[in-house]
Amino acid sequence: MLFTQILGYTAGAITSLTFLPQVIKTWKEKSAKDVSLTMFVVAASNEVLWIIYGILQNDWVIILTNVCVLAMSLVMIFLKLKYNTKKEVKQ
Amino acid sequence: MLFTQILGYTAGAITSLTFLPQVIKTWKEKSAKDVSLTMFVVAASNEVLWIIYGILQNDWVIILTNVCVLAMSLVMIFLKLKYNTKKEVKQ
Repeated sequence: MLFTQILGYTAGAITSLTFLPQVIKTWKEKSAKDVSLTMFVVAASNEVLWIIYGILQNDWVIILTNVCVLAMSLVMIFLKLKYNTKKEVKQ
Repeated sequence: MLFTQILGYTAGAITSLTFLPQVIKTWKEKSAKDVSLTMFVVAASNEVLWIIYGILQNDWVIILTNVCVLAMSLVMIFLKLKYNTKKEVKQ
């Protein structure tokens, strides 16, 4: 049981940070042309479902993981829209 | 309990397809310059941990969801490397 918990928290911690490399890359390169906006909108909406599921299951691995992923998804949506708009202004 | 199960399977089904819009976009546009390879490598490695966690918890929502996300992540790694290599050849 302890091993399972450690594994769950480890996987949860890594999942929380999965979108971070994309956020950093987009932030640095100020370009998100090839990044799918739909992916992050779907992800953000779905994180809300997962957070409710985690609350109902009383599973903190699921709750905390998905709060972080939701935050990253919202940042990516913001960056994608920001750089899309900038490009449109330039053209 | 039934509502929680339906919610879990719904969230799981959507999570399974989260990377699909990115796969379709990259496949169509044949460009993945702005897409983070690190993100998909981290995701793929972590899906393996989640699958083990799901097996230990006997939670089919977690197992099936992460098998699908693993498959999508591997496709994205393949596409990213394919289009990166093509660009290098062109230059």
